[in-house]
Amino acid sequence: MSDAIEEVPVLRFRSGRATEEEDPIAREEPLEIRLGGVSLAVVMRTPGHDRELATGFLVTERVVERSSDVESVRHCGRGGEPGAEDNVIQAVLAPGVDVDLDRLRRNLFASSSCGLCGKATIENALATAPPLDDPTWIPAALLPRLAAALEAGQEAFARTGGLHGAALFSSDGELAVVREDVGRHNAVDKVVGWALEQDRVPLADHVLMVSGRISYEIVQKALAARIPLVAAVSAPTSLAVALAERAGIALVGFLRGDAFNVYGHRDRVRP
Amino acid sequence: MSDAIEEVPVLRFRSGRATEEEDPIAREEPLEIRLGGVSLAVVMRTPGHDRELATGFLVTERVVERSSDVESVRHCGRGGEPGAEDNVIQAVLAPGVDVDLDRLRRNLFASSSCGLCGKATIENALATAPPLDDPTWIPAALLPRLAAALEAGQEAFARTGGLHGAALFSSDGELAVVREDVGRHNAVDKVVGWALEQDRVPLADHVLMVSGRISYEIVQKALAARIPLVAAVSAPTSLAVALAERAGIALVGFLRGDAFNVYGHRDRVRP
Repeated sequence: MSDAIEEVPVLRFRSGRATEEEDPIAREEPLEIRLGGVSLAVVMRTPGHDRELATGFLVTERVVERSSDVESVRHCGRGGEPGAEDNVIQAVLAPGVDVDLDRLRRNLFASSSCGLCGKATIENALATAPPLDDPTWIPAALLPRLAAALEAGQEAFARTGGLHGAALFSSDGELAVVREDVGRHNAVDKVVGWALEQDRVPLADHVLMVSGRISYEIVQKALAARIPLVAAVSAPTSLAVALAERAGIALVGFLRGDAFNVYGHRDRVRP
Repeated sequence: MSDAIEEVPVLRFRSGRATEEEDPIAREEPLEIRLGGVSLAVVMRTPGHDRELATGFLVTERVVERSSDVESVRHCGRGGEPGAEDNVIQAVLAPGVDVDLDRLRRNLFASSSCGLCGKATIENALATAPPLDDPTWIPAALLPRLAAALEAGQEAFARTGGLHGAALFSSDGELAVVREDVGRHNAVDKVVGWALEQDRVPLADHVLMVSGRISYEIVQKALAARIPLVAAVSAPTSLAVALAERAGIALVGFLRGDAFNVYGHRDRVRP
């Protein structure tokens, strides 16, 4: 059985009748991401592809920009509960790569000292990652294929109904990678981490496709990884659209068959 | 137009043809939650019911237990960008209510110093909120009505497709409240905050219904608010089921019409 799935006993009701069965559900475990001995974050995630998750997190939080910035990413066994050593992962940056831990902490956890509003939030994102100016665009006719490819790649979702998916495509529609996770953001970080390990970051000339909705944080991650197009089966939020417009990113929402909407930097999708 | 919705320009493709239109999407704005001048968290949320969101957050993070613990919860105007004052909310606890800010910060942001595993995570949740032992159960035949009531109450979702919903019911199936938010957790916190303001917390004898999946954190919030049953349209995760089992909570997943599965403390749902 895959790391992503666990069988649990379930009482299944159908039209008023109950039966005892085993049901495959999505596994969820905490992962602590450490950088040089300092704990950066604990995320609830689907076990598997943990290294990609950690490196992708470092990219989308603007700690590293290319694979040579990362010296190593390793699970660190520390005893304790069985399996606990699989839930702590430690990244070490290459010599000479500096990290502003204070800025990172502010990004992850905290707050603005001046007024807090959508506009300030967007300025803050653009201050660490400037707008995209690459000329990437895709023909509209390509989009239905992307949705079909993501769906076909979501193996654990097909069995559990409990996972989000993210897929990366080149701008000619070729599938690069699909990752699944109980957390929407984690699925994106795993895809970005995979790309970093393949030396494909920055991801100009690529399309990110996600299974759920497009929130502000998904667009922020795409901006950090330099992805000019983000597509989704479901809706974007207002702050996602506003950031996309400023950042030069096109958002494709409600992608179902040959029907979809384009928001943000709309001329990246052409009839 | 509702606070929850904003119109944006969109390029709408249908069968290869594009038209320019206005599209209603879900509003998303940051909210900073402060306690006695200290910033606890910044959450991306749907504007509206902010007071409920802040008080619900205080309940589900185990800072307060009843409405008399809270002296006031107010937006604090501080100038800056227009609208910025609506995005900072300040809670003041009643005299004599102590809060361990260090514990709270650890809960929100941080990490275990020993091995990190699902079991330790569950023990940690149960250490601040003991298992439920109230005898609440509901007849299976009641459940389809709850799903229909949540769906009917999700007004902004019906227009945007971009919001999660949470609803609270008494155990005889009477709807108490529905709240919507771009964040799954926020919708739950708003419902719990509403209940605190109505002096209905602890919520023994109630059912929480959510529109999405049931992750660990949703069950943790239910446990903190003392809700013995959580139902959802979609799947639970493994850690959600494991915590529910230990905490005396029943989870109802894949609730669609008269078909659904019961996980965790299963004898709270009876044929």
